[in-house]
Amino acid sequence: MENKISVGILGATGSVGQKFIELLTNHPWFEITELGASDRSAGKKYSEATNWNMSTPLDERIGSLIVKKCNPNFESKIIFSGMDASVAGEIEENFAKEGYFVISNARNHRFDKDVPLIIPEANHDHLPLIKKQNWKGAIITNPNCSTIGLVLALKPLADSFGLEKVNVVTMQAISGGGYPGIPSMDMLDNVVPFIGGEEAKMESEPLKILGDYHDNEIINAKIKLSAQCNRVHVLDGHLECVQVSLKTKTTLEEVKSAFSNFTSLPQELNLPSAPKNPILYFEEDQYPQPRIHRNLGNGMSVSVGRLREDSLFDFKFVVLSHNTIRGAAGGTILIAELLKAQNYLDGIL
Amino acid sequence: MENKISVGILGATGSVGQKFIELLTNHPWFEITELGASDRSAGKKYSEATNWNMSTPLDERIGSLIVKKCNPNFESKIIFSGMDASVAGEIEENFAKEGYFVISNARNHRFDKDVPLIIPEANHDHLPLIKKQNWKGAIITNPNCSTIGLVLALKPLADSFGLEKVNVVTMQAISGGGYPGIPSMDMLDNVVPFIGGEEAKMESEPLKILGDYHDNEIINAKIKLSAQCNRVHVLDGHLECVQVSLKTKTTLEEVKSAFSNFTSLPQELNLPSAPKNPILYFEEDQYPQPRIHRNLGNGMSVSVGRLREDSLFDFKFVVLSHNTIRGAAGGTILIAELLKAQNYLDGIL
Amino acid sequence: MENKISVGILGATGSVGQKFIELLTNHPWFEITELGASDRSAGKKYSEATNWNMSTPLDERIGSLIVKKCNPNFESKIIFSGMDASVAGEIEENFAKEGYFVISNARNHRFDKDVPLIIPEANHDHLPLIKKQNWKGAIITNPNCSTIGLVLALKPLADSFGLEKVNVVTMQAISGGGYPGIPSMDMLDNVVPFIGGEEAKMESEPLKILGDYHDNEIINAKIKLSAQCNRVHVLDGHLECVQVSLKTKTTLEEVKSAFSNFTSLPQELNLPSAPKNPILYFEEDQYPQPRIHRNLGNGMSVSVGRLREDSLFDFKFVVLSHNTIRGAAGGTILIAELLKAQNYLDGIL
Amino acid sequence: MENKISVGILGATGSVGQKFIELLTNHPWFEITELGASDRSAGKKYSEATNWNMSTPLDERIGSLIVKKCNPNFESKIIFSGMDASVAGEIEENFAKEGYFVISNARNHRFDKDVPLIIPEANHDHLPLIKKQNWKGAIITNPNCSTIGLVLALKPLADSFGLEKVNVVTMQAISGGGYPGIPSMDMLDNVVPFIGGEEAKMESEPLKILGDYHDNEIINAKIKLSAQCNRVHVLDGHLECVQVSLKTKTTLEEVKSAFSNFTSLPQELNLPSAPKNPILYFEEDQYPQPRIHRNLGNGMSVSVGRLREDSLFDFKFVVLSHNTIRGAAGGTILIAELLKAQNYLDGIL
Repeated sequence: MENKISVGILGATGSVGQKFIELLTNHPWFEITELGASDRSAGKKYSEATNWNMSTPLDERIGSLIVKKCNPNFESKIIFSGMDASVAGEIEENFAKEGYFVISNARNHRFDKDVPLIIPEANHDHLPLIKKQNWKGAIITNPNCSTIGLVLALKPLADSFGLEKVNVVTMQAISGGGYPGIPSMDMLDNVVPFIGGEEAKMESEPLKILGDYHDNEIINAKIKLSAQCNRVHVLDGHLECVQVSLKTKTTLEEVKSAFSNFTSLPQELNLPSAPKNPILYFEEDQYPQPRIHRNLGNGMSVSVGRLREDSLFDFKFVVLSHNTIRGAAGGTILIAELLKAQNYLDGIL
Repeated sequence: MENKISVGILGATGSVGQKFIELLTNHPWFEITELGASDRSAGKKYSEATNWNMSTPLDERIGSLIVKKCNPNFESKIIFSGMDASVAGEIEENFAKEGYFVISNARNHRFDKDVPLIIPEANHDHLPLIKKQNWKGAIITNPNCSTIGLVLALKPLADSFGLEKVNVVTMQAISGGGYPGIPSMDMLDNVVPFIGGEEAKMESEPLKILGDYHDNEIINAKIKLSAQCNRVHVLDGHLECVQVSLKTKTTLEEVKSAFSNFTSLPQELNLPSAPKNPILYFEEDQYPQPRIHRNLGNGMSVSVGRLREDSLFDFKFVVLSHNTIRGAAGGTILIAELLKAQNYLDGIL
Repeated sequence: MENKISVGILGATGSVGQKFIELLTNHPWFEITELGASDRSAGKKYSEATNWNMSTPLDERIGSLIVKKCNPNFESKIIFSGMDASVAGEIEENFAKEGYFVISNARNHRFDKDVPLIIPEANHDHLPLIKKQNWKGAIITNPNCSTIGLVLALKPLADSFGLEKVNVVTMQAISGGGYPGIPSMDMLDNVVPFIGGEEAKMESEPLKILGDYHDNEIINAKIKLSAQCNRVHVLDGHLECVQVSLKTKTTLEEVKSAFSNFTSLPQELNLPSAPKNPILYFEEDQYPQPRIHRNLGNGMSVSVGRLREDSLFDFKFVVLSHNTIRGAAGGTILIAELLKAQNYLDGIL
Repeated sequence: MENKISVGILGATGSVGQKFIELLTNHPWFEITELGASDRSAGKKYSEATNWNMSTPLDERIGSLIVKKCNPNFESKIIFSGMDASVAGEIEENFAKEGYFVISNARNHRFDKDVPLIIPEANHDHLPLIKKQNWKGAIITNPNCSTIGLVLALKPLADSFGLEKVNVVTMQAISGGGYPGIPSMDMLDNVVPFIGGEEAKMESEPLKILGDYHDNEIINAKIKLSAQCNRVHVLDGHLECVQVSLKTKTTLEEVKSAFSNFTSLPQELNLPSAPKNPILYFEEDQYPQPRIHRNLGNGMSVSVGRLREDSLFDFKFVVLSHNTIRGAAGGTILIAELLKAQNYLDGIL
């Protein structure tokens, strides 16, 4: 314990905050020592301030921590932010100004010119962008949940063949809407073909993530992207039907190899949350499926299947990723591990 | 009653057969007088031979009919076929040879050169094709459930602007798999991104339906089509995310008008099962939804919404149709009504 | 239309209010002419003030009504109240004082000594109690949704054999929690074994309803009652496992007859919303089921099945009733029809 | 590995068999070396013979085992049986005759006079009954899934206060019906108030388990029991509403203590599958819930909550247990661990 790095969590009582706590509870490198939430929760024991609804029990030590206000007076220098976008923007900036490393799941700073938008396996080379930030600390952001699964699956194709066009239709899990989120009367025996703001995120974030880092700047990728987003009656796990046109024409077997053999820096560095296989490729017609495959690689692997040639694009396939692990808290933790492994945190610890 | 036309139903104990019975129970023109099913059911009272699971109670008179074998010795000359494809092909042909008009929901004869594949609002002009059949009777087929919703929505666009490319991703209801169909353990908290044979049907049937009838022949439409089919946890109602490229460039408002103003021969003829509006257009972002809108127009209207411009195609939108009513039994009954109204049945009654 | 009785609805934008509107839209006797809701909604067109989520479309005329505040200045003298209990108590009283007949689905006045708590088939003889009210108008209440199904099934047993003990465990639908109600994350793949306040209602309301009206007073029935309430993942339809000990020992066949032959004043009067059979008895082991049977009798029949002898009580059986129709709006409308048919409304119309 | 005890699994391709494999994959004492299934599967690699639908991936070594017929020529002397009751009876007996220890989840031998029906925490003292069996080996049985949760919760009450009457209404998960089991069309938006044979099992098995072992015989407990069983739309986890009358009158606090402090021989022996707490008691009104609590204690703890006094019995409360872990494969494995720890297996290894 004594050697672990203290970390704080902002927005600790919400869905993402709870997931951060669940995933960090026995983390080999990080130790949760401070929890921040709204003024309403501040001052209470965490176990009393939150309506814990993870399926593993709340750790007793963490449950007994007293919730703080989200002011930049935390002792831990590493801050995970699971705050709602309505408040995250300013608070995260306050922390960064005061020297904290804020790794955020909120959307507010994702498109700031000097803030990297990171999927460790896809664009770890964008991290140096933080040097451009003129805060004592830094903000690093995690993309939207539906973006992450998509971009992880696209990355090996972008690397090997180049991407020209991407078309995606999602079937997203209800946990993506947070808690309480979507009423049960809206989801039972139903699909909701709309998720506010989601399509815009999916059509813009991948361009930054798959962009080139050059001269301390991100040059967006030139890909034509279209997204349609649906909410389906699944607890966790976003399923996406993807079609791609590639720059270099290739065979189905080569695409399959690109998926199966994909590995990246987090695997090389053996980061604690890095799955052995960022992409798991399935041959079975009916796979991947949310309930069966979302937890593979502890929820950090992306499952790909049903690869076939397409008459309008080059290929079509199905992508599944766990939206609250790889797509939110787990992805953010992996960024923190990468920062640590690459010595970005040396100065502040 | 005395003036109603007697009809028989083949495959009466299955899902589609039950739906035929439910929809025909108080039909103004047709009267169910004979029910055919497998040898195992033949000889029993229908109420005992079937495991009725419609949500309206089984009509007593119909429940007391004695189930017959599927041999072409029925008294009714109009036969609805809800048989499984494993047996439908030959049996339907036997009936047609003996002078029956078989209106079928089975896939077996859909691509026979002389068998029309009909959606009354879309290609009623293909009906004369039956004259080419060299049976005493005739076979007319109803398309696959996921095809019907798609093509109804495409029809006004094809008419007004011409179709070049169509991309569709479906989220299909479990009732499409029949009964018992998909195990509950496969659907709870899940999506299955595969439906055997479905994509091939969706990529071929629309070309015949939207084709031109010319010189007693159907010339397939020249549209590039791609389909991806998923099973979601919804009882009834197939939702489809559609993208189209049109031959004539147009505005979103004109597309909207094309949807809203669409009407066709069944409406003009005021057929009993024809919905007032074959297409209902929704402005609300979150509509249409299966549970809320599937029963509109007694399950015969197709709901369209979320129309917007697309970066890869010209437009994208969402289509919803009731798969067991418009997409199966109801659609087939509408064909029968059209045949009657257009005097095709005069000779045999 | 000119001969219909004008009615107003309080709480018109909520779940119960919407159901009132759906059920009254083509009512043969009543015509909705005024809608009341919170100050926030008042002044808006109803179609804009509400988030309509019934599965039949909102009637255009009603959608265009301007929502009023819930002040007792309505022109209609018959008022249906679907208000939330947090505000219903005082507002309903205000209307009653000003001469309105308020038929309420809210719980606030259910146990007032001079307010009848009515299930028309069970205790229509309690209606004269309103004469005791010293308002110009009157308040009549409808019981809780889970109570109604139970008491309808108990009534013939109480009449024929007398009730000593009743034990009930419910599996209640999510629509009972109103909209937005229970989050989907709480219901998917889950049961919640608790519904706030529900068990207390089920253990007290039946005693008043099954009580004797005597000397202008209700003498509660002497029945020992225990209730356990659970929320299950069903849209509509409360299922209840009931055990009873009877005063007069009897046979299973006689109990079955009591269920099957039950009929009451609303059937005799042929009230528009009265189902032909208040109780439908099922012999099939696996019936009744919410999805299949909840709509029988237009949602006004209660389904009973699985009757068998019990080792701890005399008999056990299963009861199903539609919680938002028979258990709320439909039950309330039936009370209004009864009031009309029995001439209670003569003075105020 | 070399020190582990080889075990075989009969019925390896079914639901229970798969769960045995999942739970035994990294077991500290046992090593799966042989898999038996129907003649249709025999001779194939397990991974090809089965339709694996556990949510953890199939172990590669086990997937490559060649499936055997269920003949008593296995090398492992410890046999877990997950066979269907239609074949289990005779095959298990064949193995027992040939000297195998068969620990079975099938119902066939549960009521044999000389076969113990074991829940390790409840009646480990019944194990010596096997000495009465005149086979070279032995058969030990695991109770029905819904029985196990109930009896574990009843055991501390039986010990401390004595049981007079028990009333139980269950809400059981779909996995209890095996795979494919219940069609999704029967479960979506529904409850099925009937499970064939289940009520009889729940009304008889507890009497044997809670009976006294005396003079090499089980004297059934004298408890009046009534059970009503329902299938609800939950993947795993049976929830049960229980009412009890006790022999010794006591307080709610004492009942609570009895639950909270319950521990037994498996905990004392520190068996690998024994949960630290066989019973977890919850104070929160809305707990326990299947999705949240079924996996506690690795699916081996039973969760109890909502304890309150009852007007018809003494107390009522809610019990939750994982039906395929504690209620099937996990419970059976715990029996095997107990047999090992108590040296029953010494002779045959």
